[in-house]
Amino acid sequence: MYTLAKPPTSFLDAILSPAELKNLSVDQLQSLAEEIRQEVINNLSKTGGHLASNLGIVEITLGLHRIFQTPQDTILWDVGHQCYVHKMLTGRRDQFKSLRQYKGLSGFVNPLESEHDAFVAGHSSTSISLAVGMAIARDHLKQNHKVIAVIGDGGLTGGMALEAINHLGHIQRNVLIILNDNEMSISANVGGFSQYMKRIKETFFYQDIKEKLDQIEGRLDRAQLTPAVWEMIMSVKKQAKERFDTPGIVFEKLGVNYSGPIDGHNVGAVIDALNKVKDLSSPQIIHIITQKGKGYEPAEKDSIKFHGVPAFSLEPPLSEKIEPAQPAKPKAKTYSDIFTQALIEIADQEPNMVAITPATAEGSGLVKFGTLFPDRFFDVAICEQHAVTMAGGMAKAGLKPVVSIYSTFLQRAIDQVIHDVAILNLPVVFGIDRGGLVEDGETHQGVFDIAFMRSIPNLKVLAPRNTRELRNMVYTAVKRADGPVAIRFPRDKAVEPDAAGAFELIDFDKWELVHSGANKNIVLLAYGAMVETAKNALPLLQAANIDATIISARSAKPLDAELLKKLVENKDSKIFTLEEGCMAGGFGSAILEWAAQQKAKNPKVKQAEIAVVALEDRFVEHGARNILLDDYGLSAAKVAKFVMDFVQV
Amino acid sequence: MYTLAKPPTSFLDAILSPAELKNLSVDQLQSLAEEIRQEVINNLSKTGGHLASNLGIVEITLGLHRIFQTPQDTILWDVGHQCYVHKMLTGRRDQFKSLRQYKGLSGFVNPLESEHDAFVAGHSSTSISLAVGMAIARDHLKQNHKVIAVIGDGGLTGGMALEAINHLGHIQRNVLIILNDNEMSISANVGGFSQYMKRIKETFFYQDIKEKLDQIEGRLDRAQLTPAVWEMIMSVKKQAKERFDTPGIVFEKLGVNYSGPIDGHNVGAVIDALNKVKDLSSPQIIHIITQKGKGYEPAEKDSIKFHGVPAFSLEPPLSEKIEPAQPAKPKAKTYSDIFTQALIEIADQEPNMVAITPATAEGSGLVKFGTLFPDRFFDVAICEQHAVTMAGGMAKAGLKPVVSIYSTFLQRAIDQVIHDVAILNLPVVFGIDRGGLVEDGETHQGVFDIAFMRSIPNLKVLAPRNTRELRNMVYTAVKRADGPVAIRFPRDKAVEPDAAGAFELIDFDKWELVHSGANKNIVLLAYGAMVETAKNALPLLQAANIDATIISARSAKPLDAELLKKLVENKDSKIFTLEEGCMAGGFGSAILEWAAQQKAKNPKVKQAEIAVVALEDRFVEHGARNILLDDYGLSAAKVAKFVMDFVQV
Repeated sequence: MYTLAKPPTSFLDAILSPAELKNLSVDQLQSLAEEIRQEVINNLSKTGGHLASNLGIVEITLGLHRIFQTPQDTILWDVGHQCYVHKMLTGRRDQFKSLRQYKGLSGFVNPLESEHDAFVAGHSSTSISLAVGMAIARDHLKQNHKVIAVIGDGGLTGGMALEAINHLGHIQRNVLIILNDNEMSISANVGGFSQYMKRIKETFFYQDIKEKLDQIEGRLDRAQLTPAVWEMIMSVKKQAKERFDTPGIVFEKLGVNYSGPIDGHNVGAVIDALNKVKDLSSPQIIHIITQKGKGYEPAEKDSIKFHGVPAFSLEPPLSEKIEPAQPAKPKAKTYSDIFTQALIEIADQEPNMVAITPATAEGSGLVKFGTLFPDRFFDVAICEQHAVTMAGGMAKAGLKPVVSIYSTFLQRAIDQVIHDVAILNLPVVFGIDRGGLVEDGETHQGVFDIAFMRSIPNLKVLAPRNTRELRNMVYTAVKRADGPVAIRFPRDKAVEPDAAGAFELIDFDKWELVHSGANKNIVLLAYGAMVETAKNALPLLQAANIDATIISARSAKPLDAELLKKLVENKDSKIFTLEEGCMAGGFGSAILEWAAQQKAKNPKVKQAEIAVVALEDRFVEHGARNILLDDYGLSAAKVAKFVMDFVQV
Repeated sequence: MYTLAKPPTSFLDAILSPAELKNLSVDQLQSLAEEIRQEVINNLSKTGGHLASNLGIVEITLGLHRIFQTPQDTILWDVGHQCYVHKMLTGRRDQFKSLRQYKGLSGFVNPLESEHDAFVAGHSSTSISLAVGMAIARDHLKQNHKVIAVIGDGGLTGGMALEAINHLGHIQRNVLIILNDNEMSISANVGGFSQYMKRIKETFFYQDIKEKLDQIEGRLDRAQLTPAVWEMIMSVKKQAKERFDTPGIVFEKLGVNYSGPIDGHNVGAVIDALNKVKDLSSPQIIHIITQKGKGYEPAEKDSIKFHGVPAFSLEPPLSEKIEPAQPAKPKAKTYSDIFTQALIEIADQEPNMVAITPATAEGSGLVKFGTLFPDRFFDVAICEQHAVTMAGGMAKAGLKPVVSIYSTFLQRAIDQVIHDVAILNLPVVFGIDRGGLVEDGETHQGVFDIAFMRSIPNLKVLAPRNTRELRNMVYTAVKRADGPVAIRFPRDKAVEPDAAGAFELIDFDKWELVHSGANKNIVLLAYGAMVETAKNALPLLQAANIDATIISARSAKPLDAELLKKLVENKDSKIFTLEEGCMAGGFGSAILEWAAQQKAKNPKVKQAEIAVVALEDRFVEHGARNILLDDYGLSAAKVAKFVMDFVQV
C-alpha cells in the first residue's frame, strides 16, 4: 500500500477545490482515497503529525465534501487533528511540507487559515455544542445550509458532548452528527457508551437482514401480494428488530435520529448514508466505523503509537518493522517518563496510591504504570471533570490519588479542583504535564496553570527545576498527603535524564541558591524549568560583567517568605522573576503581591525593584518549542537581554 | 397541611439519630414525614432557605436512613441544598434557627459539620463522580459499605454526571444512584434526557402490569400449570414489555441497572425499592418521582419561586395567597434585575442579540427576557460548558450572544471561554452575576472570576460601579461586538435603582474620577462595586484628615494606561487598589504587573507605592454579605483602617 517511489496522484492532482469531487464516480473517489492516503503517509514521514486519525477519516472527508458545499455548509471537526485530508481538499495540499512548523500549516483547523475551517479546535468534545450554536444562528438569520459535527467515539465520552446532545434532542435543530467510531480516543476508549457502541457493531449483521428486507419490499408491489406473504415479511422484520434491538436506541431516546453503523472505508456507503439524511431537518447521527491508521500497516497494528508521530522512515518498505525514526543513542528521557517512573516506585511503597488519567496515558507515559498496577490505574476517557472529582472522592475515602493531566486539559476541571478537592483540603496530587509552551499551537499551550492554580486556596503550586526535584516533589506530596499539591513540568527532555535513586522528603517552601554571583543585588528568581534558562543566560550576562545570582523557586505557593524577605527588603536589589506562563496572575505576580503585602505591614522599608519575565497577553501559535520560547522572550538570550537592558540604564 | 400552631412532633422528638428510624413502622414513618415537612416549613418561614427541594425529598431521606447506616454507608447529596431533612435526622435539628447564618448551620452538606455529611456540595452534578471515586477506594481498602449518590434530574443534565455514569457503566462498581426526579432543575428542566424521563413516567402503568404479573407468578407453582396457561402469562408479560419499552433502557445500555419509577412520597415504596437493591453489587439506579414543595401548597404550585426563599409569613394560613414576606415599599431592584432590563431594551434594537443561561433564569432575572423573546432565549439546563461553547458557535455564525452566568458557575467553563470564545476573539458577552461574596458559603463565593478572566487573552474584563454603568457596558459590548467582554456585578441591590434612560457607548479603558480629594497623593483605585465602598470609607478617612482621591476603575483589562501612568509615576503617591475578589491574580495584581512592566521600560522613574486590598488566600464561609465583607477586610470601615494604617506610619 505504501512505497518509496512517488505514488500516482492523477486524481488528487485534479482536485483544486472540493467542487471537483462532484465529477468523480464512486470508484474514482475510492481511487482518490488511496492516493490521499499515500500522500498523507509520505508527507508525515517527513514532517511528523497525526498519522493514524487522518488515515482513518479519508473516506468520511471525501463523502462530506462530495455531498455538502463548504464554506456555505459548515463542517465542525471535533479536536481538529483529523483535518489533514480536509485541508488537502480545500486548497492547502502544497503547504503540507510546513505542517506544524513555525508560521507553517497548522495541525488543527483554524478559520484564519481557510474559510473552509469553520472554527478552531484542539480540545475534544466541543463540536456538537458549536453545531447547536451555529444551527440556532442559521435559523435565526433565515439561512439554509447544513451544520455538521464530526466527532470521534472518544470525544463522545466528554461531558460537554453529552450536554450538547441532550440539548439538541430537546430543541430539534437541523444538525448532522457524524460519529467517527474507531474504538479509540487517544488511549483505548473507556466507558459504558463505548461498550454500548461495541454491542451495536456486533449486531452489524442485523442491518444486512434489514437492508435485504427493505430491498424486497422495494421491489414488491404490495397490492399483488397475498396478505399472508406480506404478514410473513413484516413478521420476519419485526423479529429481526426485536432480536437485535435497535442500534442507536440511546441516541433515539435522547431525541437524535440514528442511522448506521456504516463502513467508513467504503466511500459509496458513506455517500449513500449522507444522501439519505442530507435533506432531513431533524437532528441526525450517522454512526460510521473506521479504522485508525487504515492503509498503513504499522499504524493499523499500533494506532496508539502512530497517533501523533515524529518524522519517520518508510524504509524498509512494506515491512512490519517500520518504526518512527530514532536517534541511534538511547532515547532521551522526558519529564513525563521520569514522572511515571517516580509513580511506579512510590506505588511500591504506598499501597493506597492510585493514578488517574483522562485519556492521556500514552502522552504522559502512564501506560507503564497501568501495566504494573492495573488495579490502581484509572484511565477514565476524555473526562477531565470526572477525573478530578473522582480523585476528590478517592482522597476523602482514604486513597492517595495522583491525577496526571496536561496543563491545557486541566482548564476543563478548574471548578472541580476548587469545589471537590481544595475546599476540603484533600490530598490529591496533580501532575501537570506540558506546563509551558508546546508545538501544537493556541489550543494546547500550557500557559494558564500557574495563574489559575495559584488563585485556589489550600493548593500548593509547585514546579521542579529538574527531574530529580520532580521525583522528590511527587514523593513528598504523596507521602505527606496533607492537602492538594499541583506540580507542573514541561514537555521537554529531562535535564538530568538519569534522575533516580532514593527519594528525599523536601520542604515545598524552601528555595535553593543555584549560583551565588558576584553581583548579589542582581537576582534571577526562576520558577521551575526556567532555572535551566537562567543558567544558560548566566554566561551571556557574565560576558557583560553581570555575574547575577540565581535562585531556584520551586513553589509559587507557598512562597519562601524567609528568603523573599531578605531579597525584597534590600532596596539596592533588582529581582527578575522568570516563568514559562502567562504574566497575568503568574509567579511574578505572586512575588509582586507578596512585596505589596509586606510593604503594607512595614510601609517604611524600602524595597527592591522587581521585574517580571513572563508571557505577554496574547495566544501563542504553533511551532517548535525553542523558536516559540525565543519569540516570546523566554530563551536564555532574551532573558539575558532583558536583564542587561534593565540593569544598565 | 400547615398551621401556625406548633404542630405535633411526637415522632420527630424521638429521633436523636438515624438509628431510631429502624424501630418505626412504615405508617409511623409516613407520619414522621408529615411532622418533618411541617417543621421544615416552620423553620424556613423564619430563616429562609431552600424550601421546595427539601419538602420534596423527605421520604427519600427517611428511606435512605432507614435502610442504610451513615456514616459507615456513604450518602452523597448532589448540589447539597436538599440536605435539611438529612441534617434534622443526624443530630442537627436544634441548629435550624441559625440556618445559613454566619457561624450557623450551613445550607449545604459539609463534613466539617457532621460525620454524616460525606463530602461538600454546592455545585451540581458531582455526586456520581464522587461515588465512583469512593467506591473504588472502598474496594481497594477492602471495606464493605454502600456508596450512594442522590442526584436530581437537573443534575443529570450536567456533563460530568454523564461522564461519571459512562465510567461507572464501564467499571461496574457497587454504587447506588438515587435519581430524584422532580422535572425541575433550578429552572424548568431542559433536554433530551428530561423528555425521555417524562416518557418513562407516562409508561408508569406498565410497572403496575408487570408487578401484578410478578405477583401472580410468585403465587403460582409452575409445575401445576398447564403449559398453555404458562405460555399465556409469559406472552402477556412479553407483550406488555414490548408495548411500553423498557423504562430506563438508556441507563441499562450504559451498563447501569435501572429500576423504577417509584412514588417518592410513599415511604413504603421507597423502602421496598431500596431493599431490593441494597445487597446487589452491580451499579444500580433507582428512579424516584417526587414533587418539589410537596405538602406546602404555595410551593407545590410554584416551586421555582419557592426554590430558595427569604423568611416568609405563614399568615393567612391555608390560603393560596401566601407569599414570601415583602417590605411594603416597592421591592428594591438588584443588579440582576437591571441587567435583564438592559438586555430587553438592547434586544429591541439588536435583532441578532440572543441570551443564554445555564439553568439560572430565575436567579439572574432572565425569565422576563425569555417571556418577551422566546425565540432568542436559551436555557440550556445545568450545562455551563455547553452554554459557553454554543455561544461561541453562535457568535462565529453571526449572532450576538449574551451569556448570563454566576461567577461561581463560570468556573465550570473556563476552558470553553479560552478555547471556544477567546482564541477566535468572538463577540460573546458574559454577564457574570454574583461576582463577589454571597451568603451561600465556600462553594458559591464568586471570588475567582477577576483573576481567571484577566489571564485570558482577547477578553475585556469589566465591572461597573453602579447599574447605570452596567447598562452602558452591556450596551456597548453588544453594539460594538468586536471581541469577548466579561462584565461582573455583585449579588446586591442596585446603587441607583432607577437606572434607566438612553444608553451611551462608553470606552472600556477610561476610568473615572469619582472624588478629587485634597490629598491628591492618596488614591483609592476601586474596581467596580468597590467604588461604593470607597465612597463610604471617605468620611472616615476625612475624619482622620485624609481627604483621599477616589477613582472608579471599570476595567481590569484593558487598563487605563494614560491615567495609570500619571498615578504610578508620581513617586509621592500611595495607590490603594480595592476589589471584591481573590488577591492572587486579581485587579490589584493587574496594577502591580503594569507598574512592573512600566518600570522595566523606564527603570529610572521612581514609582508610587501600591497597596492591594483584596481577599486573602482562604475559602470564605457562609453568612450575610455585609458580615463577610467586614470580616474579610472589604467593608468601608476596614478599608478606611487599612489606608490609615498605611499612610500614618
